[in-house]
Amino acid sequence: MQDKLTLMIPGPTPVPETVLLAMSRHPIGHRSADFQKIVKRTTAQLKWLHQTSGDVLALTGSGTAAMEAGIINVLSKGDRVLCGDNGKFGERWVKVAKAYGLDVQVIKADWGQPLDPEAFRAALEADTGKAIRAVIITHSETSTGVINDLKTITSHVRAHGTALTIADCVTSLGATNVPMDEWGLDVVGSGSQKGYMMPPGLAFVAMGERAWTAYERSDLPKFYLDLGKYRKSAAADSNPFTPAINLYFALEASLEIMQAEGLEAIFARHDRHRRATQAAMKAIGLPLYAAEGYGSPAITAVAPEGIDAEALRKKVKDRFDILLAGGQDHLKGKVFRIGHLGFVCDRDVITAVAAIEATLQELGLAKAAIGAGVGAAALELAR
Amino acid sequence: MQDKLTLMIPGPTPVPETVLLAMSRHPIGHRSADFQKIVKRTTAQLKWLHQTSGDVLALTGSGTAAMEAGIINVLSKGDRVLCGDNGKFGERWVKVAKAYGLDVQVIKADWGQPLDPEAFRAALEADTGKAIRAVIITHSETSTGVINDLKTITSHVRAHGTALTIADCVTSLGATNVPMDEWGLDVVGSGSQKGYMMPPGLAFVAMGERAWTAYERSDLPKFYLDLGKYRKSAAADSNPFTPAINLYFALEASLEIMQAEGLEAIFARHDRHRRATQAAMKAIGLPLYAAEGYGSPAITAVAPEGIDAEALRKKVKDRFDILLAGGQDHLKGKVFRIGHLGFVCDRDVITAVAAIEATLQELGLAKAAIGAGVGAAALELAR
Repeated sequence: MQDKLTLMIPGPTPVPETVLLAMSRHPIGHRSADFQKIVKRTTAQLKWLHQTSGDVLALTGSGTAAMEAGIINVLSKGDRVLCGDNGKFGERWVKVAKAYGLDVQVIKADWGQPLDPEAFRAALEADTGKAIRAVIITHSETSTGVINDLKTITSHVRAHGTALTIADCVTSLGATNVPMDEWGLDVVGSGSQKGYMMPPGLAFVAMGERAWTAYERSDLPKFYLDLGKYRKSAAADSNPFTPAINLYFALEASLEIMQAEGLEAIFARHDRHRRATQAAMKAIGLPLYAAEGYGSPAITAVAPEGIDAEALRKKVKDRFDILLAGGQDHLKGKVFRIGHLGFVCDRDVITAVAAIEATLQELGLAKAAIGAGVGAAALELAR
Repeated sequence: MQDKLTLMIPGPTPVPETVLLAMSRHPIGHRSADFQKIVKRTTAQLKWLHQTSGDVLALTGSGTAAMEAGIINVLSKGDRVLCGDNGKFGERWVKVAKAYGLDVQVIKADWGQPLDPEAFRAALEADTGKAIRAVIITHSETSTGVINDLKTITSHVRAHGTALTIADCVTSLGATNVPMDEWGLDVVGSGSQKGYMMPPGLAFVAMGERAWTAYERSDLPKFYLDLGKYRKSAAADSNPFTPAINLYFALEASLEIMQAEGLEAIFARHDRHRRATQAAMKAIGLPLYAAEGYGSPAITAVAPEGIDAEALRKKVKDRFDILLAGGQDHLKGKVFRIGHLGFVCDRDVITAVAAIEATLQELGLAKAAIGAGVGAAALELAR
């Protein structure tokens, strides 16, 4: 049905009406005092969201631009980096690091499995010559619905003494606790179409003091992604390049909504939706793809054995106007993914579960009594 | 007066209401068939706007991102490039080229003066060893309001045989004729907040066949700005990274308006506004900053001798809610700039002139009879 689509993908997430309407305001000049006020205010709110006293810089770009900026601003050609790879995004940061001539050491886990913090501890302890300059970790691996133990891995990086932690928090920030300063994260990348509940187009890089020290020696070429320019402009509540002004209007509106809800409530909501979605899928006999205990608070990947996941996903969209995400790369057709990130309420979760149940019935593929999924979700939502 | 501001700066330009409202639609999935339709349609329209059968790729970023992408995708470390520098943006491309370790040969002109095509001809003819790989030219130099003779300079590049032309058409595309294929331009960069009449956030890089050949040998590191990835995705009506979906909605709306007006009418309108603005400023005794005959169709820079340009500009904003642009770098306080680019009609031009005249009166700085500027503008607009 036209204009009735509900997004249950891992970004863009649903967007509040006030945020959408903020975007339709006429742009103002980006070198004006009025725009400086917006930059000043949103910068303070971004620090609150990141739980940091460091810098949080906004770029016009995607989450990949943020992560690339985070990597190339603190490293130099030939630097050794340790990359965690247990999905499509972990894999992508390996590619970025290699594109810039870094010496990449990869710690892998199978798709669906979490990265093993012990493997990081061992690799970092073995690096007695302190060659490892940075560790790149994806917190919530969007392709598999796995959440990695970023806190523990970061503690091992800190024990190493000199390596930095560069964290891809694109689908974890604003969904689960990412206390940047408390955990000792040096660089955190994120994107507007995720926990921020905004359309895509703004990306954020948070940089701690150790990251800025590394910036001083970084020799990788950059200009648009040169974070030093952003830091300098941010000191004057400005941007070095013409930013996506209307997305700043949206950012202002969305951060206000987030602050009104509060971090604890936001994290509790995402945790509740994770539990409800997981319980529902189990109740209707659809196995979860992520290893038990490692499901992301942002997204649940489901591997419906013996069922064409892509056909199911398409039917849910056609019949119920709910867009689920498909599997990526070799998971295409084998996995579908339910996004429960950003502007998602309990009603959305229970609706998505009901639509999946009803579709399985219609396709003659139901393995459980109709209502089992909704019932299981309702129980978790009520806890 | 709140929400009454009219932008007469060189970007963002005024934005049509239909474009603003298109932005407030709820985002759709960027991997959906519905989004592919938008990419397919806007790509065809972008080729029309660029007058090219080559590729026109959309990035989420600023015009600087587009130009950096254009430069780093066709060159390799140590390559000799010839850069034209007669203002802030020409200066910027020199900085980008140097940031990537290119061997930069600069052809300068004073701010306010055009680049001399003969200097390019001489440098290119002297390059018998064919070391020059590319010539980087800013078509409309936004900082000074000068339009460079891109057509003639490009003809000299073509005569060289192997060098490419990388053109910054950020404030010329959609304002004046830039027939990419006819002139033999290889790379053209532009940004959404200019002739496109959109808010900022999308940037465009057009690449001809010779540029793609150069891409194959380019060894400069890149990932988010790697145009090969965009070309591959564009073949499937998609983007390699999550694009600014809502800005695509705006792009669809704005390109439709542009096609309805037609290229010839768009160029004639900008030419009319250039003539009217120039004539009005002369009539009220405010000298133009750009050399006679080289004023940009997008922006007119005015150097009001003996008058604090910044004070005048601020007064025009406070009294009449019209935002003019100030002077950049060493021109701050010495120059103000009237943007007549994008969604600007005859009424806007005559209004801006009237506001400037009225402000000069109020400040006791008028050198001509009140109405002289409006009269001169009206005569040009009627031609």
